[in-house]
Amino acid sequence: MRFFSDNAAAACPAVIDALAEANRIDTAYDGDQWSGRLDSAFSALFETDVRALWVTTGTAANCIGLATLCPPYGGIICHRDAHIEVDEAGAPGFYTHGAKLILVDGLGAKLNVEAATEARARIRADVHQVQPKAISITNASEYGLTYSPDETAALGEFARSHGLGLHLDGARFANAIASTGATPADLSWRAGVDVMSFGFVKNGGMNAEALIFFRAELADEALVMRKRAGHLQSKGRYLAAQILAMLDDDVWLANARAANAAARQLAAAAADRLVYPVQANELFLRASAEETAALRAQGFDFYDWGPGEIRLVASWDQDMAAVARLAAAIEAL
Amino acid sequence: MRFFSDNAAAACPAVIDALAEANRIDTAYDGDQWSGRLDSAFSALFETDVRALWVTTGTAANCIGLATLCPPYGGIICHRDAHIEVDEAGAPGFYTHGAKLILVDGLGAKLNVEAATEARARIRADVHQVQPKAISITNASEYGLTYSPDETAALGEFARSHGLGLHLDGARFANAIASTGATPADLSWRAGVDVMSFGFVKNGGMNAEALIFFRAELADEALVMRKRAGHLQSKGRYLAAQILAMLDDDVWLANARAANAAARQLAAAAADRLVYPVQANELFLRASAEETAALRAQGFDFYDWGPGEIRLVASWDQDMAAVARLAAAIEAL
Amino acid sequence: MRFFSDNAAAACPAVIDALAEANRIDTAYDGDQWSGRLDSAFSALFETDVRALWVTTGTAANCIGLATLCPPYGGIICHRDAHIEVDEAGAPGFYTHGAKLILVDGLGAKLNVEAATEARARIRADVHQVQPKAISITNASEYGLTYSPDETAALGEFARSHGLGLHLDGARFANAIASTGATPADLSWRAGVDVMSFGFVKNGGMNAEALIFFRAELADEALVMRKRAGHLQSKGRYLAAQILAMLDDDVWLANARAANAAARQLAAAAADRLVYPVQANELFLRASAEETAALRAQGFDFYDWGPGEIRLVASWDQDMAAVARLAAAIEAL
Amino acid sequence: MRFFSDNAAAACPAVIDALAEANRIDTAYDGDQWSGRLDSAFSALFETDVRALWVTTGTAANCIGLATLCPPYGGIICHRDAHIEVDEAGAPGFYTHGAKLILVDGLGAKLNVEAATEARARIRADVHQVQPKAISITNASEYGLTYSPDETAALGEFARSHGLGLHLDGARFANAIASTGATPADLSWRAGVDVMSFGFVKNGGMNAEALIFFRAELADEALVMRKRAGHLQSKGRYLAAQILAMLDDDVWLANARAANAAARQLAAAAADRLVYPVQANELFLRASAEETAALRAQGFDFYDWGPGEIRLVASWDQDMAAVARLAAAIEAL
Repeated sequence: MRFFSDNAAAACPAVIDALAEANRIDTAYDGDQWSGRLDSAFSALFETDVRALWVTTGTAANCIGLATLCPPYGGIICHRDAHIEVDEAGAPGFYTHGAKLILVDGLGAKLNVEAATEARARIRADVHQVQPKAISITNASEYGLTYSPDETAALGEFARSHGLGLHLDGARFANAIASTGATPADLSWRAGVDVMSFGFVKNGGMNAEALIFFRAELADEALVMRKRAGHLQSKGRYLAAQILAMLDDDVWLANARAANAAARQLAAAAADRLVYPVQANELFLRASAEETAALRAQGFDFYDWGPGEIRLVASWDQDMAAVARLAAAIEAL
Repeated sequence: MRFFSDNAAAACPAVIDALAEANRIDTAYDGDQWSGRLDSAFSALFETDVRALWVTTGTAANCIGLATLCPPYGGIICHRDAHIEVDEAGAPGFYTHGAKLILVDGLGAKLNVEAATEARARIRADVHQVQPKAISITNASEYGLTYSPDETAALGEFARSHGLGLHLDGARFANAIASTGATPADLSWRAGVDVMSFGFVKNGGMNAEALIFFRAELADEALVMRKRAGHLQSKGRYLAAQILAMLDDDVWLANARAANAAARQLAAAAADRLVYPVQANELFLRASAEETAALRAQGFDFYDWGPGEIRLVASWDQDMAAVARLAAAIEAL
Repeated sequence: MRFFSDNAAAACPAVIDALAEANRIDTAYDGDQWSGRLDSAFSALFETDVRALWVTTGTAANCIGLATLCPPYGGIICHRDAHIEVDEAGAPGFYTHGAKLILVDGLGAKLNVEAATEARARIRADVHQVQPKAISITNASEYGLTYSPDETAALGEFARSHGLGLHLDGARFANAIASTGATPADLSWRAGVDVMSFGFVKNGGMNAEALIFFRAELADEALVMRKRAGHLQSKGRYLAAQILAMLDDDVWLANARAANAAARQLAAAAADRLVYPVQANELFLRASAEETAALRAQGFDFYDWGPGEIRLVASWDQDMAAVARLAAAIEAL
Repeated sequence: MRFFSDNAAAACPAVIDALAEANRIDTAYDGDQWSGRLDSAFSALFETDVRALWVTTGTAANCIGLATLCPPYGGIICHRDAHIEVDEAGAPGFYTHGAKLILVDGLGAKLNVEAATEARARIRADVHQVQPKAISITNASEYGLTYSPDETAALGEFARSHGLGLHLDGARFANAIASTGATPADLSWRAGVDVMSFGFVKNGGMNAEALIFFRAELADEALVMRKRAGHLQSKGRYLAAQILAMLDDDVWLANARAANAAARQLAAAAADRLVYPVQANELFLRASAEETAALRAQGFDFYDWGPGEIRLVASWDQDMAAVARLAAAIEAL
């Protein structure tokens, strides 16, 4: 029973159907009708004019976005546990041509204004030190915590007042929306976000993520960067089709709600073991080696997360019977 | 009737079926069973041990491959009309961190030893000039010409004797194999090729290309580069599945033969208009503005290719009735 | 007798004196009093407000300047024989993070509007091809030809009308000024130049070149780039002092006039052998292998420049007796 | 009275004389007789065959050296307070094309095996995380502490056993040698160092540092990188001459001893205020705002170093009368 990653889940039926549908019509490159609909579809969702590009991975989405905000000689303030720092193999350095990640601490991989202020204060404003040009946050965070609109807006105000761009890693943005009940607008541009990745793959997509620009001029650069990085697919219609299929009828939101619900059920069973509150679809639990082995012996798949901790991730297609069994197994430990 | 690009064709049934099949089994990242089969599948095809990676575009495949052969301060000898020079938006410079393309001439976008020798001779062997470190050829070439095993081997020998790596852009390698009847081995490693891209997208794939290494140590670097460039898909099994489906039963070869046959039929009808011999699935024809307009008026879609020339491309799924109509229309001009 | 390079000449007395003088006063980094005077000294020379930075080489000056004009994904139109293409080891690619040099032809390494127009016309305005963002010219050119104010202004107008930056490689700008009699302003900002290198090393300096910005905002970026490239010397006062010493009393102009005069004397003796008109301090002569050997046998040092050609360069400190002997020797061939 | 930086000191007489001497002989680029002597001069000093290049700054020396050890996708383990992290404006990222500095803690900016081991242990050996490829240490450290041969050798052994290159930032290597009494060999290659910068500028040079390779093949790459970064001076003989002048008669060692002696005298007077032991030419003292102001009022120039701390640096040419006055002033606080 899979609880090790939402990346391991299948693509949802709407996506499979969309691929078959897209296969029936000829067209090439991103001038196709599906790709052409992305701007308007996301503009409707975000209640403002946005520019939207498909890319195939969150890493590409994040790093192309960051490269539009930060010059090669600049710095990006982010959490020490941010995906861009820990799990993207130095891709931010590749896409920005060497910009520096300026690392700060914060509970549950969340960045706050105090930490960002301290980070800035440690940097002399001279040519000998790398000057920050952007901030990056992840919502939901790498430890499954969400930012509220107010928390985001505080960082947005900080960024604006210091001339920094604000990037949002939204690999699990859907889960954050489902969890907080905030609107996409409130958790992004209204709070000062300039550019964000909007994840679909972890949420039932196959291989399409969206890169959303709230400042149109950045999108023009991003189109060039995407091609230059070999991310412009000649048959990009298959990516656009996936995304559009998940935007239609709010499939993205339903999927995220399903995953969150599964996580909440597990959280209820593991309340005394939680390392962090469960606000999205990930759980981090304290568990001894014996307990961990006992769970695995019952057929549950998950990651160890440092000594004495494990990570469980619920997916859009989580088998609720398996969830119930895992909940029971945890309670029985 | 589409003759403007093989990139515009649909994905073939084997690919669509494979995606549905891959959707039934859980797994994440490239540790999945499909990705794990690529090495052996391509090793069988190439009759030697190879390492094979999926990537989503030919640009990424070419440029990751080149980056394993050429340091940032090196040069890559290629044809002036090579895709890597003309149509990849500077991606070779991005992936290699600034290596220089050293351009040479040659009929129909083909490189030969004489031209490469001259290019080397023009470069002083000092630190003031960029020293060549690799050669890149495209088979079939950007103008639809093929290299024979002997032609390739001559370039391989040149490369080897001068300490240069040899890269092969195989976006239409299937068409070259179908056309020449040579084995994949004879047109690659036996002729001295170190790394190649093997195109599937133009040949009936959806969004998976293969990057093949004949020197295993280069593949280790390429795995890191792929991730660092945001090209490692978490659900990469869908890419591997596409490729494997096209390798099974030689679908890739059947598709290429079909496209080549369509092109040959058109070539026969346009013999006196051919700018280059037709050896794969592309035709470049002389046609006046009036003739071009006349063809378009009959519903044929294609690209202009400079003044007085047009390009026609046949696809794996080319409607042979449309081919017959176009052939007749050309003859009737 | 040295005629092989103005790079081989000694530093002029004013420079040596300035170094000794600068050695008597403490200070660090570019906050020193000498470096602080550069802006005003060059502003006076150029009759407008400029920002001026010292760097140690022409390559660094050119490439930092270009990097302020051209993004990593852009292109720079320049002559096929430009120093940045031929003799800087790919430094433009290093500093710009991969921008492409778009090469054009033109007599004597000079760029003109027609060639630049053609180069632009060959590029499709889409994301698949590298779009030009800047133009670079060299005055005096790599073959010793000068641009007039009008020629420069025509390129400046072309650049402006197409949104391109204009860079001037002024490694031998002093020779161009001495030769044309134009003012520094007329050959730079009044003609549309945005940034230029101003060479001192070939003209009697030791190891200081100037990088001049006619758009102040570019200089702020350049200051960061200079440090990031390891070109910010802690004892930069020694570089500033050299430059100021050569600006005082127009030493730079006197030196250039001396070199040009020596070249003119040689040109008069070699009128029927000149490959290009002699407009600065370089001569390119037709000479057979026997003639070349004969000159060398008499103790003259110079470079071969392709088959049947030689290059002679006159320096600021050229021994006029040696010039007379070489002139006689050439006439006697 | 200057105590704020050894970068602010004058060039020593041997250097000034050498420049005048070098000015009497023609030659160009690094094929000159002075540059040609560097390999043998440093080979004698290090008691082994080395390759030695001049560059103009410590940043360039460090970063070219690191770029020969670490690929763009690799990581460099260094101290959180290392100059390459804190004071080089991201130059390591520029020269390595994006490699990551992996920061560790340690007393007085010194790295040790335990910290390096922990840093490695935190990194999963997969393609998602940047893998370390090199270690960098600074001797004397940024806080004026020295590494013994044994400490260095322990790190060398660690590096070797894990396939990492070992780089030594030797901006104040002379002070470390003078302080420890160890040989240059014992503090470098015998302890496993692959490449090092050897500082002259802080120690009485004008604008020449040495970059020393104990593995010859790395030097070949470095020569290309130096040119590509615009650091190959056409009149490089002036840099070589400075370095050779300071190697002759061990001027470098005498200068470092003088600076260290001045620092020791100050340390004796400030024993109860020392933040770190004084092992080279830098002192970090606790001092209140009132005390700091009192010292400044007496004409002493120095840097604040965070709240309640100041930094004093003794130079090769330190006026010992001023030292005595400062020592007395500190004692009198």
